[in-house]
Amino acid sequence: MATEKEVSGGLGLEWRVTVPEGSTVKMEPEPSWISSTWNRLVELGSKLRAKVSTFGKKVWKIGADSPRKVIHGAKVGGALTLVSLFYYLRPLYNGFGSSAMWAVMTVVVVFEYTVGGCLYKGINRAIATLSAGGLAVGIDWVASKSGEKWEPVILSASVFLLASAATFSRFLPTVKARFDYGVTIFILTFSLVAVSGYRVEELINLAVQRIATIAIGIAIALSICMLVYPVWSGQELHLLVSRNMEKLADSLEGCVEDYFVKSEITDAKESSATRLEGYKCVLNSKASEDSQANLARWEPAHGGFGFRHPWKQYLKVAAALRNCAYCVEALHGCINSEAKAPEYMKKHLRDACMKLSSDSSKVLKELSSSIMLMKRSKSIDALVGEMKNAVHELQNAFASLPNHLTQTTASSPSESTEGKKNSNISIADGVALMEAMPLMTIVSLLIEISARIQGVIDTVGTLATLARFEGIRNEKSSSKVQAEEQEDKALQEV
Amino acid sequence: MATEKEVSGGLGLEWRVTVPEGSTVKMEPEPSWISSTWNRLVELGSKLRAKVSTFGKKVWKIGADSPRKVIHGAKVGGALTLVSLFYYLRPLYNGFGSSAMWAVMTVVVVFEYTVGGCLYKGINRAIATLSAGGLAVGIDWVASKSGEKWEPVILSASVFLLASAATFSRFLPTVKARFDYGVTIFILTFSLVAVSGYRVEELINLAVQRIATIAIGIAIALSICMLVYPVWSGQELHLLVSRNMEKLADSLEGCVEDYFVKSEITDAKESSATRLEGYKCVLNSKASEDSQANLARWEPAHGGFGFRHPWKQYLKVAAALRNCAYCVEALHGCINSEAKAPEYMKKHLRDACMKLSSDSSKVLKELSSSIMLMKRSKSIDALVGEMKNAVHELQNAFASLPNHLTQTTASSPSESTEGKKNSNISIADGVALMEAMPLMTIVSLLIEISARIQGVIDTVGTLATLARFEGIRNEKSSSKVQAEEQEDKALQEV
Repeated sequence: MATEKEVSGGLGLEWRVTVPEGSTVKMEPEPSWISSTWNRLVELGSKLRAKVSTFGKKVWKIGADSPRKVIHGAKVGGALTLVSLFYYLRPLYNGFGSSAMWAVMTVVVVFEYTVGGCLYKGINRAIATLSAGGLAVGIDWVASKSGEKWEPVILSASVFLLASAATFSRFLPTVKARFDYGVTIFILTFSLVAVSGYRVEELINLAVQRIATIAIGIAIALSICMLVYPVWSGQELHLLVSRNMEKLADSLEGCVEDYFVKSEITDAKESSATRLEGYKCVLNSKASEDSQANLARWEPAHGGFGFRHPWKQYLKVAAALRNCAYCVEALHGCINSEAKAPEYMKKHLRDACMKLSSDSSKVLKELSSSIMLMKRSKSIDALVGEMKNAVHELQNAFASLPNHLTQTTASSPSESTEGKKNSNISIADGVALMEAMPLMTIVSLLIEISARIQGVIDTVGTLATLARFEGIRNEKSSSKVQAEEQEDKALQEV
Repeated sequence: MATEKEVSGGLGLEWRVTVPEGSTVKMEPEPSWISSTWNRLVELGSKLRAKVSTFGKKVWKIGADSPRKVIHGAKVGGALTLVSLFYYLRPLYNGFGSSAMWAVMTVVVVFEYTVGGCLYKGINRAIATLSAGGLAVGIDWVASKSGEKWEPVILSASVFLLASAATFSRFLPTVKARFDYGVTIFILTFSLVAVSGYRVEELINLAVQRIATIAIGIAIALSICMLVYPVWSGQELHLLVSRNMEKLADSLEGCVEDYFVKSEITDAKESSATRLEGYKCVLNSKASEDSQANLARWEPAHGGFGFRHPWKQYLKVAAALRNCAYCVEALHGCINSEAKAPEYMKKHLRDACMKLSSDSSKVLKELSSSIMLMKRSKSIDALVGEMKNAVHELQNAFASLPNHLTQTTASSPSESTEGKKNSNISIADGVALMEAMPLMTIVSLLIEISARIQGVIDTVGTLATLARFEGIRNEKSSSKVQAEEQEDKALQEV
């Protein structure tokens, strides 16, 4: 390895030394061509080595960051090895014949990273195989009764119609979200059974064998997925929403702090960069939230989550949070824009702005830990009250700004007012107003963010009621009473 | 159907009439129970009918809105009917045996809505089947040479290791984006061949048959997908980005118009609601843009797009556009917030704000049509110049606001300054400033949006160069010259 480097460093000269003596003369007419080719090869080799090493480091990082992904790989490998025993053990093989192939296929296709995904595919596959198989056998029977001429026509027509209708049904949002995989398997099974029925005599026998092997495949995949270090979609969603809320809180507080006390924290800037970008996670996580919520509905009770845990409400919380994140994004844009407010204005509003952002951030963090622990927060009302006070304080500080401005501009007019020094106060104010614009936008956005946090509070409150968070006996019982009242009403109407 | 409705209208009385006479007496002891059950059934029936009819309308709407989806269904049905001919035609059947099943399976699994999706799956399936099949046959051969005891051990170990590694590789972003399906097929094929090799003697023969049928399946799926009313991922992405840009322009112009001249357009409000919500499309389309761009790279040249059309650049344009949309979202929030600026301030800034929003919207629309037509816009520089002028005009109008305010507040003090009428001007200004805050934020956001539009202009410019839009011969030739220079440089270095 080291010699390659030396060669590439020493150009063509050293290269000639390594060539067998007899060939040196022959190659002399075109040394530049050969040396350039060799150098290119060496370059390519070292580039390849560098790429492989970068790739290796990347892979290692993914594995080290989340060992669960490595475990998932081993789980799939284990499940496949287990299912391949069907081939090796003769008695089982004799029982199921070549249908054992379906067990392997089922494990490969059904085994997903999360339990929800595995259940979604397993249940979809089971239902689709059974319904499509039954339907196909029925149509086969009808076709076989209608004579040899009509049989292929009936079968082809049924394949065409059902496949077309089923494929179209995948465009319906509900079908797409819950049964997409099932529809594929339905078309597949129906086509295979309906078509092969024309040839194979013992259709029922084959169907039973195939269903049995598919069931074995699903059982192996599900049990390994659920019992060995399971990854639950529901829990992932729960953690994702809760963590995103904390990231947004950090990002909000951090960027306002950064703006007002920038000079003091230049050292720690790099480490805080990822912290500031937290809002981007919130903006970009819609797709993964949607898919986790879709899969979570298939999962049984696990951890603190019941079977009918209100996963959809998490999506509403996430949407309210994203609503805040849009404003935080605009705030970041404002803070990083070229137009800068003069220092004396920043000083005047600094404390009020930082108080509001810190209070807003505290509310979000409290909500985040309330979700994380599934407990109703005791201090949330006080924190919201403080946040509202901070809004009023900021508004007051803002209202006293012009008063402050006229004094300041009178004593030290800003540079851009050249040639207008002697004009009346209102024009000096006008220029000052222009300069204050980014700061005003920041103030306005901070107030808007605190208003949008109210939306997050509401959705989290509904989540707490629906998911029966600890410490909300009053709401729980009142909602129960309401439900009972509604039932009574329904009975009376009848 | 009509009778059911009558019954449900007439309660239990009419119902008893329809019952055979003999049974009337028997049922009398519990008429309330029976009538309630019957009513429930009737209710259920009418509910079901309503649901079915709603569902039917929904399905019809999806089909009527995009007939391409219906055509896609028919295409899949047609492809499956075609492939099922392999079963019906005896000579073909005798040639391929039960492997014909793989043709059906391939068509079902590979046939996707867009050509890109179909090619992605087809190519992935072909490469994965060939490589995994070859590898499995090789390992089978090694295992068979190592004695009967070691054979299952070697095979099981190889299945475990390869399946684990391949499953883990799916977590790498590049593999996930381009080869996810291929990895599944690789694991599947490898497991099936390696494991079945223990039993079946004519492995090579079987492999050739299977590969041939899979090739036939892929060929049928691809040719029908590409030749009959094809849907191209690339074109979809192209249209999506271009349309989203226009929607954002409409939304931006509409909401500012709505704010300043609200009273005049109350009639048309409902029709403009969807227009105003256009920015939401931009915010929510990231996932579909990403997937279309991923699939578009598999597509051959089609329409005006070459094989190496810069699809990734579309994602950058979309990101820049989303960056604008965040601000438009904040703008909407601001406009719909409870705090309203007083009318006289709105009047003062109305023309300048509407000019800027209309100019910004014009720039976006021009860019959108430039992308749509793949032609470089001639008027874009003039429009950008106008937009920049509008920014200055708005800044000037804003700077003259306090001047205007002091005059206005002196003659007609706003209502909220009760008790402060006699205080000095600067405090009256302070209150006015508070009232003006939403308006200031709107001004500031409009200016920020126009700054972010510059980012869209830049990314579209790069797209125009990379995709060689018509009418940019200069850039094209200059980039060619650059590329040639770089090549020369590289040659000289060697």
